[in-house]
Amino acid sequence: MNEGIAAPLGFRFGVSEAGIKYCNRKDVGLIVSNTPASCAAVFTRNAFTAAPVVVSREKLHQAAGIVSGVVVNSGCANAATGDEGMANANRMAAIAEETTASGGPFLVCSTGTIGVQLPMEKLEAAIPAAASNLQVSSEAFIGFADAILTTDTVRKTASRTFEVDGKKVSIAGCAKGSGMMQPNMATMLAYVITDAAVEPLFLQQIFSRLIDKTINCVTVDGDTSTNDTAIIMANGASGVQVAADTPELHPFETALEEVLTELSRKLARDGEGATHLVEITVAGAPTFAEARKAALSVGNSPLVKTAIYGKDANWGRIACALGYSGVEFDANKVDIRIRDLELMASGTPIVFDEDRALEILSEEEIKIFVDLKAGTKTATVWTCDLTEKYIEINGSYRT
Amino acid sequence: MNEGIAAPLGFRFGVSEAGIKYCNRKDVGLIVSNTPASCAAVFTRNAFTAAPVVVSREKLHQAAGIVSGVVVNSGCANAATGDEGMANANRMAAIAEETTASGGPFLVCSTGTIGVQLPMEKLEAAIPAAASNLQVSSEAFIGFADAILTTDTVRKTASRTFEVDGKKVSIAGCAKGSGMMQPNMATMLAYVITDAAVEPLFLQQIFSRLIDKTINCVTVDGDTSTNDTAIIMANGASGVQVAADTPELHPFETALEEVLTELSRKLARDGEGATHLVEITVAGAPTFAEARKAALSVGNSPLVKTAIYGKDANWGRIACALGYSGVEFDANKVDIRIRDLELMASGTPIVFDEDRALEILSEEEIKIFVDLKAGTKTATVWTCDLTEKYIEINGSYRT
Repeated sequence: MNEGIAAPLGFRFGVSEAGIKYCNRKDVGLIVSNTPASCAAVFTRNAFTAAPVVVSREKLHQAAGIVSGVVVNSGCANAATGDEGMANANRMAAIAEETTASGGPFLVCSTGTIGVQLPMEKLEAAIPAAASNLQVSSEAFIGFADAILTTDTVRKTASRTFEVDGKKVSIAGCAKGSGMMQPNMATMLAYVITDAAVEPLFLQQIFSRLIDKTINCVTVDGDTSTNDTAIIMANGASGVQVAADTPELHPFETALEEVLTELSRKLARDGEGATHLVEITVAGAPTFAEARKAALSVGNSPLVKTAIYGKDANWGRIACALGYSGVEFDANKVDIRIRDLELMASGTPIVFDEDRALEILSEEEIKIFVDLKAGTKTATVWTCDLTEKYIEINGSYRT
Repeated sequence: MNEGIAAPLGFRFGVSEAGIKYCNRKDVGLIVSNTPASCAAVFTRNAFTAAPVVVSREKLHQAAGIVSGVVVNSGCANAATGDEGMANANRMAAIAEETTASGGPFLVCSTGTIGVQLPMEKLEAAIPAAASNLQVSSEAFIGFADAILTTDTVRKTASRTFEVDGKKVSIAGCAKGSGMMQPNMATMLAYVITDAAVEPLFLQQIFSRLIDKTINCVTVDGDTSTNDTAIIMANGASGVQVAADTPELHPFETALEEVLTELSRKLARDGEGATHLVEITVAGAPTFAEARKAALSVGNSPLVKTAIYGKDANWGRIACALGYSGVEFDANKVDIRIRDLELMASGTPIVFDEDRALEILSEEEIKIFVDLKAGTKTATVWTCDLTEKYIEINGSYRT
């Protein structure tokens, strides 16, 4: 049961059960590269940055983008935890560095409840336990993908391989997150590993640009969390070098974008309480940023999200959300359709077949297309519908 | 049963039943001033501006701020209705002008479903019917307040009086709106009438400033609608003139702000599916706009709103929403409390009494205080909690 995941060469994975918040499941995970790996990361921009984010950013900087692995816990976010939280985040990394003896620094991530200190006595035992059982298999990677989950209902993994001159390169990724999701890295953790060799700075450029088009286009509820982190490690174990102006660059970027897109779609589909994956594409914007802004305005509208839940082709709410997005366009030119069903053309409502609308909205995946006719740029964002279940989950999370 | 409403002198009110969407209730309302009145208004900034907003803005401008009244229908928003919608909005005003024979122009408002044409044959009969039964009483004003409601569960009215040199001035207001609410005039209609005499330009200055501190600080779900309109009419029937540097100005502004604040609180409390009124005050911001931005970020967070629904003093979600508000502050200085219960001091969580927290969160009105310690400005916003009922209402509105 490896879900077709092709684990890149030269990485090992370990998990253990610290019992931080959840019972009878793994809540600590390690990814270890056999050799120091190039690393790039994108972190939350929330002003209340969690301790592990502060620590990881600093360690990545100090190590000039070369690390040995990551250590992650779920169940406690180690956010808004003051000096004690900073010491604990540093200690988590130190335990991982010591017990894996892999020579390089570890980045550290936490996800879960905000404002509670980590139970360090549990982690002092659990991180070494994970380190003592590191495995190379795809199944072990999946075990890691499971250990980072919180309110997620399904694991999120994706992988791609490509070959250049007979040499195979693998990219595998996993992610967690289902609430408090919004661009700029919500309560979202994503890890991508590859056996390609990529210089750290170049890797950061590629990763930042692709995250902007993928993970940063996912929204569940507009909340950007204190802990969001996406990390990529490239250890070169495939023997294939990816650099600017090489034939390897294009297939590498394509494969990486596909992995990140698949993770993004899985994150949106598993939005808390979701019954639909909603893909919103806004074309005809002056810039990518404005296209995304308009698409996110639609994707974050509770009225659009509840209409989709109610299988209601309520294009008025879509138009309304475009209208208050802050993006400038001429309302008399806008086209809106859901899949192939035209709802508005040049700002005028189209009389549509309600049966066909119900049919389309009964599908699990809803595709909304908007043409603003105010430029040439396009963005796609992914979200989900808003249901009673979201309220139930979040009305009783902490207590 | 006039709810203690003191109806200002020189206004008449009429309602009728057009049967646009609702059955067995009034859905058309008129306010008519006996003499042409100074008028000021604040309209939605949504790019998909509804026809009645376009028409009212234009009529107010052409009339240099002197009008005879307003005509309103509920059940159909006349938004995204193209040229036919514009003609219909103009026609609604014309019917009101003709049948009331009051000499001046009428502004026009519509609220309800977007993208559906008004049933003009019904309005051709219903507006004259309302005009044929104009009454002066407070009860008639309340009848108007009822006719403008849509998904609201309660009417929203407020009034104040003050005396200057033995002359009494009355201000009365009513509003509707319970979903699609957000600053910059959500699906919100508000009408204020006063028998003070105020020059149109001066009235607009006062009204715009006070709306910014009141109605534009209400949010239910972050959606700003296509139709939002707040209108004030001042007909001078009290014989009291309000102008700059007069002793009447201060009591007038105070009374008007109180009326608008009361309406704002009632709008938030009746947010779709709400079980709590939530008042969020952010102090210590560099500017009022930034204080409001931070407060709205908290007020729009689905996670904060569901936590309040669940009676959970989850200050982590409040901190998180402040953190992604885009307002700059030092996270290590922030204080957060709910009523008198300290949750965070100088960025550090406080261990609090959970029983006391549950007690406070069981009250109908929740007051959240934040001090950013990044300036001297304060803003208060009003919102409500997010419940399953909101989903139920909006998941099945149109169909």
